[in-house]
Amino acid sequence: MPKLDFWYEFASTYSYLAAMRIEGLAKEAGVTVAWKPFLLGPIFKAQGWETSPFLLQKTKGKYMWRDLMRLCEDAGLPKFTAPKSFPAHSVASARVALALDETVRPEFSRAVYTAEFAEGKDISDPAVLQEVLKKFGHDAAAIFTKSGEQTIKDKLRANTEEAQRLGIFGAPSFVLVSGEMFWGNDRLEQALRWAKRA
Amino acid sequence: MPKLDFWYEFASTYSYLAAMRIEGLAKEAGVTVAWKPFLLGPIFKAQGWETSPFLLQKTKGKYMWRDLMRLCEDAGLPKFTAPKSFPAHSVASARVALALDETVRPEFSRAVYTAEFAEGKDISDPAVLQEVLKKFGHDAAAIFTKSGEQTIKDKLRANTEEAQRLGIFGAPSFVLVSGEMFWGNDRLEQALRWAKRA
Repeated sequence: MPKLDFWYEFASTYSYLAAMRIEGLAKEAGVTVAWKPFLLGPIFKAQGWETSPFLLQKTKGKYMWRDLMRLCEDAGLPKFTAPKSFPAHSVASARVALALDETVRPEFSRAVYTAEFAEGKDISDPAVLQEVLKKFGHDAAAIFTKSGEQTIKDKLRANTEEAQRLGIFGAPSFVLVSGEMFWGNDRLEQALRWAKRA
Repeated sequence: MPKLDFWYEFASTYSYLAAMRIEGLAKEAGVTVAWKPFLLGPIFKAQGWETSPFLLQKTKGKYMWRDLMRLCEDAGLPKFTAPKSFPAHSVASARVALALDETVRPEFSRAVYTAEFAEGKDISDPAVLQEVLKKFGHDAAAIFTKSGEQTIKDKLRANTEEAQRLGIFGAPSFVLVSGEMFWGNDRLEQALRWAKRA
């Protein structure tokens, strides 16, 4: 079965859209998706940026919020709701995602995004993440302890370094086995077509 | 009939894609398009950038060329061919576009983009622009003289200032009568749906 790596960052608004859309589209295309959380922070820092380009470029940032409102409406998602603090500190959610088995990572990730961008919650708050974990019947305390272990920290660092090595500069990105890369929620359909064809 | 302003920059690769696609899609949607050439240079400068973000961000720039190759193929356009110098100095082509009547501006603009991104030609070279003008039966020398007049220079400056006032930060952008703005070739279909609905 053709494969696609889905590189996503929990603070990223366009990753949210892709996370909500990818499973249905991938199933239709007959493509298996590997969910790869990573951090954009170190990649932005290497670029000389101290924060998200949506804060550094004010007109572009303002536009992004409007764009998301429209795109969420078109995608049949709940009304887009900006969290109080943007970009969110996403380290905790990314570590929890990696502490979970791959089979439950997608549903956890989607629920985190929903908390963040449909309910405007602060996903750096452990209580928010624990609520999401409990919703899916996980032992929230045990998963949280595991997410703080060195092996998980190393996994997230390794993912971020791999993303950088692949030439990833933004999120979401989709990468085929061949290394062919597609950037942005807008390229999801095209990436799946290429994965299928490969 | 619903209306849409198409803001484009002759040096912009994604404006090329939109320019080649917009007429057919607008016709289907029953939307009238006004072609508005402007310059991104002053807008980038106001942002503190001395050149295109595709040069300032090397990994993003490298990706953009690959993205354009794939998108041109998907759109049935000739093989994407990067011009020797990028971004091109686009002042001359924008002025000629504004010196022409609105009814012939689209075909001229498309032909300039084809010279630039399908044939790899340097559109800052007056000979390249004159060749395009002659192809459409224009008096190239007369149009060139007109394009150097103060009224035309003022028109281009006014367009660029209007773009800035509208909150445009990149090209292509599509703006409805209501002020609703859409950025990027990827938003062309959505912008037309909104124009139709308005």
